[in-house]
Amino acid sequence: MKLWDKGFSTDKKIDHFTVGSDRELDLLLAAYDVKASKAHAQMLGETALLSEQETEELLGELDHILSTIEKGEFTIEDEFEDMHSKIEYLLIQKLGDTGKKIHMARSRNDQVLVAIHLYLKQELEEIKTQSRELFDLLLSLAEKHKDVLLPGYTHLQVAMPSSFGLWFSAYAESLIDDLYFVNAASKVVDQNPLGSAAGYGNSFPINRKHTTESLEFATLKYNVVAAQMSRGKAEKSTAFALSAIASTLSKLAMDICLYMSQNFDFVSFPDELTTGSSIMPHKKNPDVFELIRAKCNKLQAVPNQLMMMTTNLPSGYHRDLQLTKEIIVPAIQELRSCLEMTVFTLKDIRVNQNILEDPKYDYLFSVDTLNELVLQGMPFRDAYKKMGTDIEAGNYQPKKDIDHTHEGSIGNLCLKEINAKMDQAMSG
Amino acid sequence: MKLWDKGFSTDKKIDHFTVGSDRELDLLLAAYDVKASKAHAQMLGETALLSEQETEELLGELDHILSTIEKGEFTIEDEFEDMHSKIEYLLIQKLGDTGKKIHMARSRNDQVLVAIHLYLKQELEEIKTQSRELFDLLLSLAEKHKDVLLPGYTHLQVAMPSSFGLWFSAYAESLIDDLYFVNAASKVVDQNPLGSAAGYGNSFPINRKHTTESLEFATLKYNVVAAQMSRGKAEKSTAFALSAIASTLSKLAMDICLYMSQNFDFVSFPDELTTGSSIMPHKKNPDVFELIRAKCNKLQAVPNQLMMMTTNLPSGYHRDLQLTKEIIVPAIQELRSCLEMTVFTLKDIRVNQNILEDPKYDYLFSVDTLNELVLQGMPFRDAYKKMGTDIEAGNYQPKKDIDHTHEGSIGNLCLKEINAKMDQAMSG
Amino acid sequence: MKLWDKGFSTDKKIDHFTVGSDRELDLLLAAYDVKASKAHAQMLGETALLSEQETEELLGELDHILSTIEKGEFTIEDEFEDMHSKIEYLLIQKLGDTGKKIHMARSRNDQVLVAIHLYLKQELEEIKTQSRELFDLLLSLAEKHKDVLLPGYTHLQVAMPSSFGLWFSAYAESLIDDLYFVNAASKVVDQNPLGSAAGYGNSFPINRKHTTESLEFATLKYNVVAAQMSRGKAEKSTAFALSAIASTLSKLAMDICLYMSQNFDFVSFPDELTTGSSIMPHKKNPDVFELIRAKCNKLQAVPNQLMMMTTNLPSGYHRDLQLTKEIIVPAIQELRSCLEMTVFTLKDIRVNQNILEDPKYDYLFSVDTLNELVLQGMPFRDAYKKMGTDIEAGNYQPKKDIDHTHEGSIGNLCLKEINAKMDQAMSG
Amino acid sequence: MKLWDKGFSTDKKIDHFTVGSDRELDLLLAAYDVKASKAHAQMLGETALLSEQETEELLGELDHILSTIEKGEFTIEDEFEDMHSKIEYLLIQKLGDTGKKIHMARSRNDQVLVAIHLYLKQELEEIKTQSRELFDLLLSLAEKHKDVLLPGYTHLQVAMPSSFGLWFSAYAESLIDDLYFVNAASKVVDQNPLGSAAGYGNSFPINRKHTTESLEFATLKYNVVAAQMSRGKAEKSTAFALSAIASTLSKLAMDICLYMSQNFDFVSFPDELTTGSSIMPHKKNPDVFELIRAKCNKLQAVPNQLMMMTTNLPSGYHRDLQLTKEIIVPAIQELRSCLEMTVFTLKDIRVNQNILEDPKYDYLFSVDTLNELVLQGMPFRDAYKKMGTDIEAGNYQPKKDIDHTHEGSIGNLCLKEINAKMDQAMSG
Repeated sequence: MKLWDKGFSTDKKIDHFTVGSDRELDLLLAAYDVKASKAHAQMLGETALLSEQETEELLGELDHILSTIEKGEFTIEDEFEDMHSKIEYLLIQKLGDTGKKIHMARSRNDQVLVAIHLYLKQELEEIKTQSRELFDLLLSLAEKHKDVLLPGYTHLQVAMPSSFGLWFSAYAESLIDDLYFVNAASKVVDQNPLGSAAGYGNSFPINRKHTTESLEFATLKYNVVAAQMSRGKAEKSTAFALSAIASTLSKLAMDICLYMSQNFDFVSFPDELTTGSSIMPHKKNPDVFELIRAKCNKLQAVPNQLMMMTTNLPSGYHRDLQLTKEIIVPAIQELRSCLEMTVFTLKDIRVNQNILEDPKYDYLFSVDTLNELVLQGMPFRDAYKKMGTDIEAGNYQPKKDIDHTHEGSIGNLCLKEINAKMDQAMSG
Repeated sequence: MKLWDKGFSTDKKIDHFTVGSDRELDLLLAAYDVKASKAHAQMLGETALLSEQETEELLGELDHILSTIEKGEFTIEDEFEDMHSKIEYLLIQKLGDTGKKIHMARSRNDQVLVAIHLYLKQELEEIKTQSRELFDLLLSLAEKHKDVLLPGYTHLQVAMPSSFGLWFSAYAESLIDDLYFVNAASKVVDQNPLGSAAGYGNSFPINRKHTTESLEFATLKYNVVAAQMSRGKAEKSTAFALSAIASTLSKLAMDICLYMSQNFDFVSFPDELTTGSSIMPHKKNPDVFELIRAKCNKLQAVPNQLMMMTTNLPSGYHRDLQLTKEIIVPAIQELRSCLEMTVFTLKDIRVNQNILEDPKYDYLFSVDTLNELVLQGMPFRDAYKKMGTDIEAGNYQPKKDIDHTHEGSIGNLCLKEINAKMDQAMSG
Repeated sequence: MKLWDKGFSTDKKIDHFTVGSDRELDLLLAAYDVKASKAHAQMLGETALLSEQETEELLGELDHILSTIEKGEFTIEDEFEDMHSKIEYLLIQKLGDTGKKIHMARSRNDQVLVAIHLYLKQELEEIKTQSRELFDLLLSLAEKHKDVLLPGYTHLQVAMPSSFGLWFSAYAESLIDDLYFVNAASKVVDQNPLGSAAGYGNSFPINRKHTTESLEFATLKYNVVAAQMSRGKAEKSTAFALSAIASTLSKLAMDICLYMSQNFDFVSFPDELTTGSSIMPHKKNPDVFELIRAKCNKLQAVPNQLMMMTTNLPSGYHRDLQLTKEIIVPAIQELRSCLEMTVFTLKDIRVNQNILEDPKYDYLFSVDTLNELVLQGMPFRDAYKKMGTDIEAGNYQPKKDIDHTHEGSIGNLCLKEINAKMDQAMSG
Repeated sequence: MKLWDKGFSTDKKIDHFTVGSDRELDLLLAAYDVKASKAHAQMLGETALLSEQETEELLGELDHILSTIEKGEFTIEDEFEDMHSKIEYLLIQKLGDTGKKIHMARSRNDQVLVAIHLYLKQELEEIKTQSRELFDLLLSLAEKHKDVLLPGYTHLQVAMPSSFGLWFSAYAESLIDDLYFVNAASKVVDQNPLGSAAGYGNSFPINRKHTTESLEFATLKYNVVAAQMSRGKAEKSTAFALSAIASTLSKLAMDICLYMSQNFDFVSFPDELTTGSSIMPHKKNPDVFELIRAKCNKLQAVPNQLMMMTTNLPSGYHRDLQLTKEIIVPAIQELRSCLEMTVFTLKDIRVNQNILEDPKYDYLFSVDTLNELVLQGMPFRDAYKKMGTDIEAGNYQPKKDIDHTHEGSIGNLCLKEINAKMDQAMSG
């Protein structure tokens, strides 16, 4: 059964090619489709397009379907093209003519659009929560290890003293920036597209504000053509947000992989979190972090995938847009599992305490010595030259007591201020 | 003269390869560098790292340099690696030892970071203004042509009636979504990185809140490692915003190119805005829109370019990051010129009035006829079947009086509500 | 059971995250793994690292496993990390100590590398065959419809006469160029990496030429580090080839979607190959071609996905590389299904015969008229001006008898020459 | 003066926006345009479309223009849209009516197409030559340092012994694979598109084989629509080739940046090739390699830029295609400068001799010890367990005399075979 069935049977091959992984993905979206159908039915009732009894029957049956979905008992058999066909079939089977009325004043495009908007809105919310969890962990690790120094690099060359306090909280503060994009994506998807029908509205006297309120959307996507245009755009907006977080996770994973190398040996993890080699006992392969890195790098490519699929399509619906689902849904799941695994493993990170005792890091402290000369009154450029000469002549002795006091420095991490900034981003 | 000059001359070839287009780009950034230097000098004065007199001298000379920049008289000769070297050279030439003190408690990384943040913040603001201008034009065109119908397409197949009112205002409302990403990017860049030095802070008792206020940043990027990490990330965040707007402009341009084809013939432009062919007088080549489309499609690829350059770089500065400038600066200029040209040409668009009189568009109205049956009480799925049979039997006569009344439909464009949504986005 | 098992059980969560879709994908690769194991065992036998009996036992058992794979009876249970673990388990279970010897002088990296090379080589071969099939169809359609004219567009503006002969065979000839990239990718993968062990070779006196010959590789990837580097690179090379073909299919699909629009109405398909709308009988939605277009546009993004995952990884194996499999394998399958569907549907294409009778296409012929003037001796630029004036004055009458005779023009399609070029590409 | 001038002056703004950087880029392409014009004129003479005298005059004047180009004296003033306009202007100015005849039987599209094909063909040839130069250097470095060991890493963990011989020649052999893509791109561009006119051929009895021979193209792009389609596709094909080489250079640069870090300290360069810091004398910033890495990563994104610009454009010329020039020309120049700089700097690389004396690398040798047990008859899996136990019990002593003998291993680099493979690729 297809919604557009004309009586002749479309070739099987075509069927298989066009349906793709829709049924599978729809199982994740089905609850949102039913919720939107409920809002639609209620609105039809309010505007007298349905009788009170019809409305109640539809709502009752939709609630029943929703509960099968929530119990994991909902299925989409091969004879149904997608969740929409299956749900409408169930309604008609149970309610006869009343079931047939649910599709009044809407189209399948409408249904997909609203279900995806609801789904993306919810997932972006979950991603914020998971990001906050990671943020909190990073801040607590920064606090815990704030006095442990490590070398800071520029050009991968040993450069200036840094600390685990700085390192952990840098990723925390950086993550806040990513949430601005999550918030932007949330604003894009938090607009009700329901009522746009096939993308040009319709002649029924529907009340779109009603469904906006009952579905708890912040506002309407008013213009029906704009609502249709949000197909693909909502997904791409979400992909920007995913990409932003993925970039931060990937960078953190890269640092960890490097720092676990014997050539750095800055951090380690319990055996259960690494993979090994029986004949090289020193090997603690950071597979989890390599996979987080790889998955997150792949996730950063998602906006481009969606752009390639939607660029240069003129306005109006194209079947191409159906395929955005099979990109964005797994991408969201993948980012969420990367966030989960980062928290899961990072909480057990072990930090080496005496890294800077190695003489190869002695020059790290030369800049501080230089600065002291400046503070004693020597112009910067002159102090800079003197230091260079001293070092070359072998007259340099590192003074390893760091005294950095300004905001955001080793000695003054401003974790409270960073936390407050995160609070604001979470509420944004 | 190079800031890191060691006395031996680096090979010329290397020099040419490493400096690249820095000098050229720096001319655009120089004013921001001077402003940041002023804030830095003031702060050094406030914290007694500079004497009052030194501070005044530096501020005076920086003001002088700023005025040469504003007059377009500032130059960066080949013997200077970049703007920073040249400006410091000017200060030392004029003020001697006092000039040498400006670099106290900061590094070149610092300077580049803060200049780029100030530049991006300003450009994003300008882009908002230009977007608003386009938005206003689109709304006024929607109002002006709200009663002119055009075919709505799905699958590029003639589907349902649409209108120029819907079409113009759809792009307006869609543009609002793009501004959420501009706002997100603005939040990312509106954080003071100055004071992060080489990316690990320093031992001077500087006051970063002071420079934050005098440079009118909304907040600090507290953590100095996070500040350093924003190099590349600030550019990529901006690129997401550019990409979002570019996508909307490109789609609009695609529609226009299609609608100008003789096969659609929906819109046209005065001769001055098209290019032609002397032997095919009907040809009005939409070169401007083809170029907007192409440039905006290229702009959508900018985030990916930046990702490719920054992915898998461990934390800390790498010279790679220098090259982000030569990607983001032309991209901003290109988007701004596309916005300008879109406004410049679109205001003269001519809209064909009687498109739907062509019988090939008759079936557009079949859905409205169907809906009438439904409104008269026939279940949707039954009405749907009846219509199909009627049409096949040749019994269908289009009723061309559209009566769409719901929010965001042809008859109820909600331009006021869309405008209010834009007001909110502008202030976001 | 894991090859690197240390005795402690790695956390389940980690397990799930790291194994990913490996088992599923490995079912497609398992036959190649077994074939490579056979070649490896034979070589070990030849070089006396295995006794004759051990070799025979291993070969016998591997043949048995191969036949279960070919019958679709091979499975990889949850307790096995991947196909390699399962196959080795089966060998040990059956052959005891002899089974344990198969892993001598190789590593799992080795096994994956060689299996992927064999797989990619085979798939690229199949893709060539399918491309040839499409090519042949396009040529036969060009021959069949060579006299049917259609408008040629520039800037989407009606420009010059074209023909279905030109249009079909253009895609055929364009496809040849894509095969050059398939051939390049084949050369990349047709090099035996077996023997590179973990990427640094090993101390066994193995004979890599022996396995090269028995696996029918064209040559060795000699350098073992280069062999390891081909992980990711082989996939990306293949992705370039996929991307090239996908681009051609996508463009063809775009043309078809446009030409099926009522605004063009150049081609059509039987009902079974389109989807429809019960109330708009004119609607023949080109879903198949929209999906081919979308899938092929997505496929063009695959090289970028792989680049994002592998860029800036230093030399040597990283777990990141494992994830390339889950990108390239589905991409290959998707391209092959797009090729199949293009052939399947295109063979039923219907071509409208009298397109150019519509007066909107009259100006198409103006250039030919101009050329006649030139052939009669008028300098080109003067003839050009005269034509412009004539048309403007309404003195232009289209002469619709096309007489294009040069190579590759409407009247001289050179299908034989194009076919010969394809023959060469196929053998390349 | 524009070729399509209609008499009214197009708005200046439009002009500036549409011409873009065409004039600048055209200076690089002008010689190819003139050469193609010469071939066109000759062919017109041969087919009697021009008189003998006209032909000679045109050839003489074109030769004159060519010599001004070669001397760097050719200019394109602001009143000319591009090189084609300027060259035609020069011909008409000198030869009057005869000059006007050069444009007979071709169009500007034609001219651009053929000039770009000739340009790309030449540049790809140069890139092959430069790649060969790098290859030769890498092989000679491999030979020179073949006995110097370095640690081999997997997962960035110390794993197995490697050598500079392996490392250098791995990049050499890997580069051969890239040349397969250069060869593929060369085949794509080595097909004469001249004669396709505006993309649909023309009614002149031109002889395309004649121009094919005189321009030394390997073959014709027969089908004129296919010839037009090669616009954008030729550039993208070239971009695949650039991207392949760039990927190899970037990886090499990444290795070098890592190996120059104090944490590895495997290689170094003379001071003139690094940048430094006056107060950290150990700092030898690998700026050149960081920039090669960054530029090459950016270059890898070029195919995607071109795809984004050309995807979903229906067949036929679009102005969008003009912008491909401003992407591919700088990309070619950038890759060539990266190749040049890699050779220029790499020849001075210094290799540390005693890296493996550091005890942190002791376990590198455990696999070889294990293999000895196997060679003595112990089944692999049992030897593997024994070694693990030995090491854990502290009973392991590294035996540092490597004896790897198989093809492509430390002791048997097969440089001659790799060189032969390169010879073949060069002739491909």
